[in-house]
Amino acid sequence: MATLKEIAEKLGVSVGTVSKGLNGADDISETLRRSILDTAVEMGYTNSRTQKKIHRKMAVFIENMEYEDENSFGYEIVMGFRKAAHNAHWGVDIYPVTPAFQEENRYENFLLQMKYSGAFILGFSLGDPWMEQFHTASIPTLLLDNFIPENPSIGSIGTDSEEAFDMAVSHLSALRHEKIAFLNGSSGSLISDQRMACYLQSMLRHHLQVDPNLAIYGWYVADSAKYHVPGMIARGATAFLCGNDLIASGVISCCRELGFSVPEDISVIGFDDIPLAEELDPPLTTICQNRFELGKSGFYGLQSMTDHVPLSKSLLRPTLIVRSSTAIAKPRLPEPCEADQDSIIFKNPSLLARFT
Amino acid sequence: MATLKEIAEKLGVSVGTVSKGLNGADDISETLRRSILDTAVEMGYTNSRTQKKIHRKMAVFIENMEYEDENSFGYEIVMGFRKAAHNAHWGVDIYPVTPAFQEENRYENFLLQMKYSGAFILGFSLGDPWMEQFHTASIPTLLLDNFIPENPSIGSIGTDSEEAFDMAVSHLSALRHEKIAFLNGSSGSLISDQRMACYLQSMLRHHLQVDPNLAIYGWYVADSAKYHVPGMIARGATAFLCGNDLIASGVISCCRELGFSVPEDISVIGFDDIPLAEELDPPLTTICQNRFELGKSGFYGLQSMTDHVPLSKSLLRPTLIVRSSTAIAKPRLPEPCEADQDSIIFKNPSLLARFT
Repeated sequence: MATLKEIAEKLGVSVGTVSKGLNGADDISETLRRSILDTAVEMGYTNSRTQKKIHRKMAVFIENMEYEDENSFGYEIVMGFRKAAHNAHWGVDIYPVTPAFQEENRYENFLLQMKYSGAFILGFSLGDPWMEQFHTASIPTLLLDNFIPENPSIGSIGTDSEEAFDMAVSHLSALRHEKIAFLNGSSGSLISDQRMACYLQSMLRHHLQVDPNLAIYGWYVADSAKYHVPGMIARGATAFLCGNDLIASGVISCCRELGFSVPEDISVIGFDDIPLAEELDPPLTTICQNRFELGKSGFYGLQSMTDHVPLSKSLLRPTLIVRSSTAIAKPRLPEPCEADQDSIIFKNPSLLARFT
Repeated sequence: MATLKEIAEKLGVSVGTVSKGLNGADDISETLRRSILDTAVEMGYTNSRTQKKIHRKMAVFIENMEYEDENSFGYEIVMGFRKAAHNAHWGVDIYPVTPAFQEENRYENFLLQMKYSGAFILGFSLGDPWMEQFHTASIPTLLLDNFIPENPSIGSIGTDSEEAFDMAVSHLSALRHEKIAFLNGSSGSLISDQRMACYLQSMLRHHLQVDPNLAIYGWYVADSAKYHVPGMIARGATAFLCGNDLIASGVISCCRELGFSVPEDISVIGFDDIPLAEELDPPLTTICQNRFELGKSGFYGLQSMTDHVPLSKSLLRPTLIVRSSTAIAKPRLPEPCEADQDSIIFKNPSLLARFT
């Protein structure tokens, strides 16, 4: 890791000037400041070696995720992170960011200048400008539900999808469901693809047949259900796993409109356990991501990374919260129908090919 | 979580007596002491709530793994754990254990009595008496390279095998090897099975054909090579991935005895990067498990678990250390031969069926 002296030598300026550039002092030019930051990043300089215990701080960058309202998905994650950081005497600043903000500020320059030893990244999309920069970044960074291969400075954290689907499929299988459908969220996100793979593997582990027309990508909203549920019920589905609780709420409404009762005719399981889940009619059986503990674990993981642990993936246990939207399967005769255009085999043929 | 008072009420004794039982005081009978410990375990009592920061301590239990000699596999793992624990002001005690010790001492009783808030488990086999107890244990426990499903008090730590095999197969594929063999360690251990699955997946991701006769379980010793290498070379293997560095050393000797040069004729990659690896002739290209960081990460993971984080799996990045045992493939004509009796299809047919 580079020292201030090495950066100064490379640029032909004094150590004091480098220090000013890194600290955002006013009495050097903007051009020189940028050049100092760029050189520091290029040479792998990080804040960790110069910081005293008492001044250590981390940043949390959030995009596409609400966190200020108690009912929002990100609220407890941020609370958990803050709590664990506070107990270990680390400071935390929270930044809601946009793609435009990322375009304006290079990731590592921003962290260096603001004196952060590491950052926790929530809700970013694959197309975000910083995602590309994470491939070469050397400041400890932990991503929720995203993964950057081969860079030991960038780790990933999330809920163990394999165990989550095993719990849900076991529960439904014990209730004698065989035609278990999965209405996933949007395709093209890492977590959606992982969950699809875990669903397929879990069906195989439980010796249940996979019907490609019952393994479908939609969108992470309630409205997604109405485009897919009728066709999936026509194919014989008696139970639905859903990519999140909103989709599950849409599936319940859709079943009702089609004249089916939940759980008497159709069982439904959500994902996340947001506050809405227990207020649904019927209250939703769902896979709980423990968001407060995810946040705490984000801090612990990042803390280990600032101590040079090359964390790749850290996964937490999910919990299956059994409420009233699942019940023993009613035997039904499936009616044949045409293959659905959004079927997984159209969206992701290689994935399924590996399991059939 | 139970309190001393609840345990006392259940047993009809005083809180002071319960406290004596948990602290191993001399002035109560052995029968009563055991009964207090059993009840405390049954009621989910743990040490964490009663311990002051200054007295916190963890145990490390080691079996089937050398750790006292600097060159041994466990040495740096234990050092890393101790270092991170020391920095966070936790005490650590190390116990080499045997199955007999496990038979004599129930796992949680031992931890409660000795006042440990959690434990790190190294080198245990699936048949060990405590492995069964881990399914219901409620004291935070982290296992290296072993996994207990669905118990949120028991986590797993290891090196990311998926990335490890991707790095090794990419390296060999860039050197134009196509017939890449994998001589694994013993079958029936979780880590061996995971590595076999990762090898198969990685071959598929690199669009390389899997020959079941080149994906073989042996033993984690150098001698394992001589039973398998001749047949695998006859099947056209030009490169060997190995379950550990000892197996790789055996593969190199075996190639030499058969008249092949490493790396001119055959490339060899080990696993672990034990000190022996760079002393081999030629020095061994190998997948490095960063054992010091694994140990540190063991502490950080366990620390988060004592703070109620339900850690499932924590995986660290491997590093591919390129030395001189790998080189550009020589095109060779494979000679046909009979299928090997130890082939993966005999040992684990379901595994391969999923990938072909």
